[in-house]
Amino acid sequence: MTAPTDIDRYVEAHRQEHLDRLFAYLRIPGISAHGAGMAESAEHALGLLRGAGLNARLCPTVGAPFVYGEALVDPARPTLLIYGHYDVQPADPLDLWHSPPFEPTIRNGRIYARGVADNRGQHLAHILGLEAWRDCRGTLPLNVKVLLEGEEEVGSPRMPGFVADSRDLLRADVCVISDGGVDDSGRSVIRFGVRGVLSFELRARGAARDLHSGHWGEIAPNPIWTLVRLLATMKNGAGVVTIDGFGETVAPLSAEERAALAAMEGAQDEALRSIGLSEMQQHPARTLGERRAGWPSFTISGLHGGYGGPGSKTVLPCEAFAKCDIRLVPDQRADDVLAMVRRHVARHAPGVEVISHGAMEPSKTPLDSPYAAPVRRAIARVDGTEPMLLPAMGGSLPEYPFTHTLGIPCLGVPFANADEANHAPNENMEVKRFHRGIRIAAALLEEIAASSPSS
Amino acid sequence: MTAPTDIDRYVEAHRQEHLDRLFAYLRIPGISAHGAGMAESAEHALGLLRGAGLNARLCPTVGAPFVYGEALVDPARPTLLIYGHYDVQPADPLDLWHSPPFEPTIRNGRIYARGVADNRGQHLAHILGLEAWRDCRGTLPLNVKVLLEGEEEVGSPRMPGFVADSRDLLRADVCVISDGGVDDSGRSVIRFGVRGVLSFELRARGAARDLHSGHWGEIAPNPIWTLVRLLATMKNGAGVVTIDGFGETVAPLSAEERAALAAMEGAQDEALRSIGLSEMQQHPARTLGERRAGWPSFTISGLHGGYGGPGSKTVLPCEAFAKCDIRLVPDQRADDVLAMVRRHVARHAPGVEVISHGAMEPSKTPLDSPYAAPVRRAIARVDGTEPMLLPAMGGSLPEYPFTHTLGIPCLGVPFANADEANHAPNENMEVKRFHRGIRIAAALLEEIAASSPSS
Repeated sequence: MTAPTDIDRYVEAHRQEHLDRLFAYLRIPGISAHGAGMAESAEHALGLLRGAGLNARLCPTVGAPFVYGEALVDPARPTLLIYGHYDVQPADPLDLWHSPPFEPTIRNGRIYARGVADNRGQHLAHILGLEAWRDCRGTLPLNVKVLLEGEEEVGSPRMPGFVADSRDLLRADVCVISDGGVDDSGRSVIRFGVRGVLSFELRARGAARDLHSGHWGEIAPNPIWTLVRLLATMKNGAGVVTIDGFGETVAPLSAEERAALAAMEGAQDEALRSIGLSEMQQHPARTLGERRAGWPSFTISGLHGGYGGPGSKTVLPCEAFAKCDIRLVPDQRADDVLAMVRRHVARHAPGVEVISHGAMEPSKTPLDSPYAAPVRRAIARVDGTEPMLLPAMGGSLPEYPFTHTLGIPCLGVPFANADEANHAPNENMEVKRFHRGIRIAAALLEEIAASSPSS
Repeated sequence: MTAPTDIDRYVEAHRQEHLDRLFAYLRIPGISAHGAGMAESAEHALGLLRGAGLNARLCPTVGAPFVYGEALVDPARPTLLIYGHYDVQPADPLDLWHSPPFEPTIRNGRIYARGVADNRGQHLAHILGLEAWRDCRGTLPLNVKVLLEGEEEVGSPRMPGFVADSRDLLRADVCVISDGGVDDSGRSVIRFGVRGVLSFELRARGAARDLHSGHWGEIAPNPIWTLVRLLATMKNGAGVVTIDGFGETVAPLSAEERAALAAMEGAQDEALRSIGLSEMQQHPARTLGERRAGWPSFTISGLHGGYGGPGSKTVLPCEAFAKCDIRLVPDQRADDVLAMVRRHVARHAPGVEVISHGAMEPSKTPLDSPYAAPVRRAIARVDGTEPMLLPAMGGSLPEYPFTHTLGIPCLGVPFANADEANHAPNENMEVKRFHRGIRIAAALLEEIAASSPSS
């Protein structure tokens, strides 16, 4: 590692202040799934952008507003677009949190709070990186645009339209997104793609009321059995999605892609230990990396119907629902897959309702993008080691509007620890990774500015 | 219909008082599944037996006490044993009740309350029938024993042992149980058997916490998928239980049994309308009566895991459970079936826990029992029409200890309307059927006494 720079010293000196500002942000719930606290969260994010010297404003939508800020220093210089989201996942199940989700708490070097890693701690690191640069060195070395969304956790329903309508506003050379975690081993990564996601709900209904199971069993339909039988037709025991027509939309992986995905495997044993498992599900012909990011997955995120209290109740329930998400790979299209789900359900379980809960398309940036090298250098400078290059990640982010609509490369530079527990109780971010994120964010400005053909 | 008897006039004169006493009983929750209000309910039932002139007492158990009362008039006369249960089902989902479950309310000629039909209104009719007899005619015409249980709704775990330990106390010539409803057409029935029931829960666990579905889907086990895949192996699309070895325990029905079961079909359209369905599930080779009472059924009474709130949450849940009941036919044995379930689960989904929630064995009394005729006469006298004779019913009652352990016939004489909504919101009993039950109960005393070889 090289000697500390002025920015390193600045970040060290502002440690507590930066944490205080993160905590203030995390205390405002902004749960897009419930439409709770969105306006307050957006206003707070707006204040953060303005505090960093950006010319910022809210862009209202029929849902949560976008928060946009920019610092345009020189049209001849490259423009970096930073994307993040200020909304957070619901916090339930609340009883599994060891400290309240909206009262950030530090334990064992980690900040515990809903949204600390996904995504407030990460985009705040970028904002504080901009501040650090300005406070240490004055004018930014390139043009910067920051776009913060308020509906990422419900599938970014308004992102594609907003980006398409704002091509001029958002015009940039490269987009950087800090979301998700570094490798299980602790090593930083650069991600070149994301899977898409299609979220939907299956709703089955039976009689108008719950029935006595002895009197009506096998006579009146049981909506839970209906869903069980339907779902069993939608994925096989090896984890392969078997929705009618789905298989043909999944492009086989090239040898090169398989090799890159196989290299993503990381420190499996540690990752498993962190989630309390001794082994993972196996697929005879697929590596872990392939299953994580190269193939679609089909998750039932919730299934509820009938009695759930103590002991037993001999009741035949009248309704049940399953919440599902399917992760998509290039070049699947969410609309096509949703149409397939509808046709499959109509054929195998007519009467079951399919409710769409939004989608994100998959996205891919070439591994040889000209912006890969400066981003690598920025990370290596701060970490002291080279980051891993990952062709894709298992999760989903709205990169598609940037790569497809704006036509620019989009690089994922996650700042959080791999065991961040995003979307789960006890979401957390290591304190050191928050501060390191600020330093990487500042280094990115310098490296991207320096590498540009126009600099 | 014949001219009103002294007892008919008595029941008419005491209409309001009898309703008041029923309402007072119904206001005491006694939910065995939650262990709530059991002692108060037992004490109240004890008072009712004593009020009818029975020599009554509580028989404590490690669970809810039995309430036992007797009036022994003459050892040379026959002894009638009446069984009922003072515990009730849980009342949830509460929001679907149109009036509070423990505040009995009369609407459109029906009493709405949890437990009014299942079973307090029915055994109270017997108690009031005894009172009516004594008040009108003095000494009872035969020996009467009344046994009220407090754990029927959780599978009568202590009934077999209690009856086996109390053979002398409970010695009788015939047992009558008033539970369940009359035929869908409104016609009274006599039931000669019941299905058994085995209640159990399947519990699947994955990681130590909920996970991000994009990062861990198809890698960490999904307990909901585990249950879906397991359950799909346990019953086929035609409603036939496919648990390994189960099929061999189901005796094929004789032509005679099939004919008797086919005659049970009743007024299907009306029954379906009452539960908001336009058609029932079909099985190509089985009549409705067969499916209701002649074959086993496998009901998932509840399945819960993962996110259940509004919208979507891309989470991979860490646990899920399914509550199940399997109805058993003669001569299946619940212990054998539970062992089969355990073996099946161990083979198809190792790691899934099987928790027993109790069982009742099936029971059968011959259609040509010598007590069939007097019971028919008693019902016909009050109704003015002959009751239907049903070889079995779909539900379960602890008749097995009487038919097997005591070795006496056990006849089901339900007083409730078919659409009683037992085990469901808005459980109800027609006011007229409550009062008619009291008159049938009194008539039974007379007919059984008169028909006995020793009378």
